[in-house]
Formats: sequence, structure tokens, C-alpha cells
Amino acid sequence: MSLGDPLGIAGVGLIGGSIALRARAEGVRVIGYDREAIPAGIVDATCASMELLARESATLVVALPLDATLDAIDALRRGDDRNLALVLDVASVKEPVVRRAAGWARFAATHPIAGAERGGAAQARADLFAGRAWAYVPGANDEAVVEFIRFMGATPVAVDARAHDEALALTSHLPQVVVAALGALLDERQARPDLAGPGLASTLRLAGSSWALWETILRANAGVLSGSLRDLAERLSAAARDLEEGELSHIPSYFEGANRAYEHFVRERST
Amino acid sequence: MSLGDPLGIAGVGLIGGSIALRARAEGVRVIGYDREAIPAGIVDATCASMELLARESATLVVALPLDATLDAIDALRRGDDRNLALVLDVASVKEPVVRRAAGWARFAATHPIAGAERGGAAQARADLFAGRAWAYVPGANDEAVVEFIRFMGATPVAVDARAHDEALALTSHLPQVVVAALGALLDERQARPDLAGPGLASTLRLAGSSWALWETILRANAGVLSGSLRDLAERLSAAARDLEEGELSHIPSYFEGANRAYEHFVRERST
Repeated sequence: MSLGDPLGIAGVGLIGGSIALRARAEGVRVIGYDREAIPAGIVDATCASMELLARESATLVVALPLDATLDAIDALRRGDDRNLALVLDVASVKEPVVRRAAGWARFAATHPIAGAERGGAAQARADLFAGRAWAYVPGANDEAVVEFIRFMGATPVAVDARAHDEALALTSHLPQVVVAALGALLDERQARPDLAGPGLASTLRLAGSSWALWETILRANAGVLSGSLRDLAERLSAAARDLEEGELSHIPSYFEGANRAYEHFVRERST
Repeated sequence: MSLGDPLGIAGVGLIGGSIALRARAEGVRVIGYDREAIPAGIVDATCASMELLARESATLVVALPLDATLDAIDALRRGDDRNLALVLDVASVKEPVVRRAAGWARFAATHPIAGAERGGAAQARADLFAGRAWAYVPGANDEAVVEFIRFMGATPVAVDARAHDEALALTSHLPQVVVAALGALLDERQARPDLAGPGLASTLRLAGSSWALWETILRANAGVLSGSLRDLAERLSAAARDLEEGELSHIPSYFEGANRAYEHFVRERST
């Protein structure tokens, strides 16, 4: 990789750890910083602070939750080490990141559309990004960013910050809240695991997501997300009305639209 | 299997076909009837009518959609062939089936909690039921029914018809309608597949389900289901309000409940 060696990673969780494993598998040296202990075998060396990491790295990936990412942007920008050719983040919402990093030439805002419902470095995998989309906000470093994303095995998707956040409200944040609400309802009503099947397991996969990680994401994209939640709530009320009145005037069209969504988001994904 | 030979299957789709494949793999001869052509390799022989099938079978599985199951109960009961030791159905809602078959001694109402979002004999698999729950309504034939379910590789769960339908409203029918409504919303708003990941694919797996199969299920369980849909609609409205007001007073508890549901319905399933 022409991005230089070593690759620094601030925040060695699921995403940071998977970036580290992939880079090392490709022969790049990786140094990491995390407030918590980093499990053995994920990075080549650790740094005692993010400042030190920035001084030692050629390229630096900030793989922290959104709020910590914003703080890191401020801190790294103040330091602004000469050796550091490129800093990129991987947070799930891009408008606040782009706003905070405005005018900082060596920064690039990106977002790998991959993950797992359970976070942490212990879940990290070198192939987490293989074949997945990796969004980036076009800017001064596009060539290097695209090279980095391809180096991770992912497909670069150029998208501006607002369009990204609007798209992810639908493809990620809305489903996350819906599955959380559904899971909570099943938990409260003591739904029976002995009478549940693989379809429900698939539907509830995102129910394992951690609130600590999601709080800042949902707050940051609240405006776009709340409208979609109201829309879906109305559809569910209409479905209830259909069933109460015995006139199924809404539900059939949901299945029709859902069958099309299945083609785009499920079937074409698995091939 | 002491249930006798051959095993008759009326309706050779995903469920009927998978029962056939499992039985044949275990050395039982299978004869089938379907209005549509049955793909090669699924049954040993076919019958030209359900009446003929009933006359030839020792045990008969009615593996038809709910409405056709109710019609088949009437037809088979009129014939009431002496050779037929046991007739069982596999429909997803049990109260209408039990009501229709009331007093018919050789009938047993059952429901395998397994499936796939895409139906049809082409999707049939001998291991579709392996390790899955298979509900049955206790009655005069429990010993034979439990033997049959175990023979299919599944775990028998005794449950009365009303409790079954209430349980499945939560573990199957509600998630199905929610995923359909979510899928339709994504389709209508032209959500971007190039910015979607594996989490959404998992959430939308049930979006591939066919309305033709689901219409009678939802109508039959409308009373229980509509209340849950209203409950979930209210939770989503409360989530929207949380985000609009910046006071997250509901969403955190959804994640908490959902994390518990994840343990029961996802994690314990996959081990």
C-alpha cells in the first residue's frame, strides 16, 4: 500500500480490529491505541496515547464511536503531525464529522457498511469488509481513500455527507430502532422461544446491538430518522385496522413492496 | 417408523417436500399429491387425487396452505378411509384447524416451526426440521404424533391451539407484518442497496414471503395480531417523539429489552 507504513488505528474494537487484521494479513505494520486492553494478535504494537499514535503513523484510522470521533478530530487537528499523510474516520453518521473536520486537508470521512450485532475486538475478522460497500465523502484525498478502501477488500461508494446520512437512516438506523422496539415487545410479552424459528432469529439479529454505541448515532441523525419512524408507525396502525375490519387494503401492498426490497437488499446481496 | 408405510403427502411444497425428503432418507416410502407438477426425486410415487392418496397411505400429512387445509379436512373426513391410521396437518394457525377437525379421532393438528422465505418444492431439504421446534395440539394420537415429529428430526412441543396461535402471533405473524411494512417503506423511498449492509439483509429476510401464503394466516389470527401491531406502532411513535424532543426516554429501554430478546431468540438458537 502506498499509504505508507505503519498504519495507526485509534480505537481497536470490531471495526478498528478488523482493519488491523486485514492490513497485517496484507503485510502492513499496524500500531494501535485503545483505552482498553487490546487482545493479542490484532496489532503489531500499541501506543500509550492517541498523540503518540498520530506521531508514529503514516495513515491514521479513527475507529471510535461518533462522539469520541468528533473529540479525536479536534485533538488530532491541534497536533497536526507532519508525518501523518491521511486521517480517516469510520463513524456511522457523516454530517457532524464533516462539519467538525471542515477545512482540515488531510482528513477524509468514510463509513464501512459492515459490522456485527456484537462489537469488540474479540469479534474482529480480516474479512469483515470483503465485498462490502465502504462509503466516503469526496474531498482532497480521494485517490488515497479509494486505495485504502480497496486495500480493505471493500467497494468504495462516493457520497456526500447529507445523502449518506439520509440513505443510512433508511438502510440502517430505522431498521435498528424497529428491531429494538420489536425485540422489547417480545421480551415484555414473554414471547415463547420454544415456539420461535429461524425466521425470527434472522429478524432479531440487530436486537443484540449495544445502546452505548447507538445513542450518539441516533441523536446525530434524529431529524431524518424520526420522520421514517412516524411513517412506519402509521403503516403498522393501518395494518392493525385492516385486520380489525377484515378489509385488507394495506397489508397486501406491503408484501408487494417488501418482495421488491427483498430482491435488492437480500437476494442480490447473497450472490 | 411404526406409523406405517407408505407416508402420504398432500401438497408437496417446501414443507411437504422436506417431510418427503426426510422420510425417504430414513427409508420410508413416500407418495404424494399436488395440483402442480412435483419435481423429480422428492416422492417415490404420485397419486392423481387426494382421495386416492388417502386410500393408499398409512399416515397422511396435509401440507397445504391454511384455507386448503380446512377444505382437505372436510374432504378426507367424508372419505374416512379405514387404512388411514393418522392424518396430520402442518398449518401455521391452529384454532381454525382444531375447530374444523373437532371429533375426528384420527386427526392431529401440528405445526413445524421451520421454513424459508421462499417456498416451493424446489427449496425442500431433508434437514429443514433438524433441531427445530414442531408444535402439536395434544389429543388422541399423541404417541404417534411425537414419534412422527422425532422421526423428522424435530423437537415436539405440546401446546393447545389458542396458546399456539397467541405465541405465534408474537414470534412469527407480527415480525412478518413488520418486516413487510419496513420493506415496503424502503422500496417506496428508494433506499439505496449500494449503501446497505448485512444487518439489513438479515432484518429483511422475511420480506421475501409470499402474500398468497400469508393472507389466510393473518386473517385467521387477526384478533391477536392486531393488538400487537398497535402496541408496536405506539412504540415507534414514542421513539419518533424521543428523537424530535431530544429526550430519549423510550428508545434506551427498547435496546435493553431487545438485548434480552436477542439472548433467547438469536444467541441460544445458534448454539
